Amino acid sequence: MPRITEARREARRAEIVAAARRCFSRDGFHQTSMPDIAKEAGVSAGASYRYFAGKEEIILEIAGDAFRMIFEPVERLVGSAEAPSVADLVSASIDPVGGEETVDAAGQVVPVDELLRCAVQAWGELLRHEGLRQRAVDGFEHVGQRMAEVLRQGQAAGTVPADLDPDRGTRVVMALLHGFVLQRVAFGLDDIEGFAQDVRAILTDAGVLRTADR
Amino acid sequence: MPRITEARREARRAEIVAAARRCFSRDGFHQTSMPDIAKEAGVSAGASYRYFAGKEEIILEIAGDAFRMIFEPVERLVGSAEAPSVADLVSASIDPVGGEETVDAAGQVVPVDELLRCAVQAWGELLRHEGLRQRAVDGFEHVGQRMAEVLRQGQAAGTVPADLDPDRGTRVVMALLHGFVLQRVAFGLDDIEGFAQDVRAILTDAGVLRTADR
Repeated sequence: MPRITEARREARRAEIVAAARRCFSRDGFHQTSMPDIAKEAGVSAGASYRYFAGKEEIILEIAGDAFRMIFEPVERLVGSAEAPSVADLVSASIDPVGGEETVDAAGQVVPVDELLRCAVQAWGELLRHEGLRQRAVDGFEHVGQRMAEVLRQGQAAGTVPADLDPDRGTRVVMALLHGFVLQRVAFGLDDIEGFAQDVRAILTDAGVLRTADR
Repeated sequence: MPRITEARREARRAEIVAAARRCFSRDGFHQTSMPDIAKEAGVSAGASYRYFAGKEEIILEIAGDAFRMIFEPVERLVGSAEAPSVADLVSASIDPVGGEETVDAAGQVVPVDELLRCAVQAWGELLRHEGLRQRAVDGFEHVGQRMAEVLRQGQAAGTVPADLDPDRGTRVVMALLHGFVLQRVAFGLDDIEGFAQDVRAILTDAGVLRTADR
């Protein structure tokens, strides 16, 4: 009997994730069952369970893709030559979140809107599943540390306000980015460029203050 | 046969809302049925349907209570003697959201955490129920107009950056507040005072800039 190759396994796994994403985005997390996902992916119900123990595991993976889309641009700013301001940190994430398409962990092209709709539903699940919540909190702690580095870098260069607590202040940046996701997906925000401009207008550019103070 | 009085009707309605809030917060919106809510409230299943057509209607009412807690302090700033800055707008809401208890539309004392857990679940529902979403969008448009007034007031007084678009910029304030709710309820934010301080450090105080520019 021919054995399924590793590449075929990975491709099938990616198909199941993509199918789940379409189902969750269209019908909602709770209105979707594992058999629904298998059907959407064109595999047997048994096959889907060979890849994932349940749909909680799949939405965690999808939420992870959304998380990477939002926070990877922030991580890339660590150690960058120009010391980034808080507005730079936020702007770096607005760009991909405001886009039409991104890629998931398997390298598949994903509609951004579909990914964000899943992320908002995952927030609701975090409240009830301690396992999911712990993994999300771990992710946030990791990215929070990287963000705090960027803020310290900015403080040393004078582009981030000196009175900001770098470790604690990352929560404000995260809040702004999560709230942006909600505005985009639930409250009809479509003027992404305008939002980015207003973020720049509202957030302190400590460098400007410092120059003016001299 | 004695007829139920209007006061008794209102009290019973409030009990059903409170019961639903406990159920949604504890078990999740989808894991709670109308009979579950009736049981928690100590009324017959039929009685609960005399007050609400379904649980979507109840979560919309609960989300409205959360909405008022977050945005009423902002509305109260309209026409206030000191021209509020953007940081003042945000701070006004952080205070009640960071508290232990608030009151709902019926005047009942409600644990803030319970209300916010329901609000995050309501966000997920908005994505799929056009009726809920439309009512939420209407609420946001109303509060957005009031917020824009506060921003214009601040611009006239020099406490809000002149290059901010007041109508569009309200979305940034809303995003920050929604993201704060998520940090509080899903990601373990408990240092509310620290968060408020960092918001003040990050957001431009246009008045300071203006003074420095002179």
